[in-house]
Amino acid sequence: MSDRWNVAVLVGSLRKESLNRKMANALIRMAPPSLDMQIVEIGSLPLYSQDDEANPPAASKTFKERIEKAHAVLFVTPEYNRSVPGVLKNAIDIASRPYGKSAWNAKPAGVVTVSPGAIGGFGSNQHLRQSLVFLNMPALQQPEAYIGGAGDLFDAQGNITKESTKEFLHKFLAAFAQWIERNATKPAANEKTKAA
Amino acid sequence: MSDRWNVAVLVGSLRKESLNRKMANALIRMAPPSLDMQIVEIGSLPLYSQDDEANPPAASKTFKERIEKAHAVLFVTPEYNRSVPGVLKNAIDIASRPYGKSAWNAKPAGVVTVSPGAIGGFGSNQHLRQSLVFLNMPALQQPEAYIGGAGDLFDAQGNITKESTKEFLHKFLAAFAQWIERNATKPAANEKTKAA
Repeated sequence: MSDRWNVAVLVGSLRKESLNRKMANALIRMAPPSLDMQIVEIGSLPLYSQDDEANPPAASKTFKERIEKAHAVLFVTPEYNRSVPGVLKNAIDIASRPYGKSAWNAKPAGVVTVSPGAIGGFGSNQHLRQSLVFLNMPALQQPEAYIGGAGDLFDAQGNITKESTKEFLHKFLAAFAQWIERNATKPAANEKTKAA
Repeated sequence: MSDRWNVAVLVGSLRKESLNRKMANALIRMAPPSLDMQIVEIGSLPLYSQDDEANPPAASKTFKERIEKAHAVLFVTPEYNRSVPGVLKNAIDIASRPYGKSAWNAKPAGVVTVSPGAIGGFGSNQHLRQSLVFLNMPALQQPEAYIGGAGDLFDAQGNITKESTKEFLHKFLAAFAQWIERNATKPAANEKTKAA
């Protein structure tokens, strides 16, 4: 395949030294050649209000257009209070509206949750998947990615230190690339080089 | 009981004509005398970032202090994409931090979901309850309040037009008041008149 898939990577934490951002960057570096993965920032979005839909704030408009251009989406997120961070859910809500004009529709998705704790963000991962059903985003089922004990997973350069985790993530990315291949809308020939 | 319980009411939608805001105001008007219910606004909060915890933005600080003063919390919220609105979850995340200093801890909670659709916000209601477990907020179990078909529930003055819904909400509020009575930390004598 000569076309590359544009994958929007959403990071659920705004913290500068976020473990999830480190994970997103590590995944981007490890990505197979068919995936053009790029972080799409969500930290400057306003809080969603339906009153803004007729005339959305510039940040919301830009964000939604960026998601529309992606062929697939990878969510890399912590768990806050056993659920999806409000920050990430707000971004999802913004690009899902107005009704019938969701930017997420039909884009294949992957979910990676990363946590210093033992449960690996399971609560967040599963809550997010419930929204993906409604958003009509076919979500990669296996392998599930609940990455716990992430506090000592990265070296100072953000590289993953654990060999078994690295192997798992390669497996995850290979499955995700296959999933996109099977479920994404093919990029048109003239879209080959696009990367918004 | 001569003391009144201060109940913070959080509305999960920022829309001016929000059905959930109408419901919150209707519940406030219907509240039994023991409950001093007040809407606490969440629309001016910043997006949560752990980097802000050492020196939180004024809006976050004020909001958290306001929640700390409440004896109980009532969530009145729509469902966005089969889950809790990002806007509401963001407010919950903000007042839950830093770790070990959550403002929500041990406060009894009620959950009312309101929707124009048929499912009455069930997905949002249940996802919120999973967070309440972690937040250690004893949540009223019965009656559950999934208010569907809410598009024609209010008259122009925001009064509830359906007699059966009004009856149900009276029942809900009575159970909620009992629940608070049983589970809230008693207000100190000098707190009787406080209303932050």
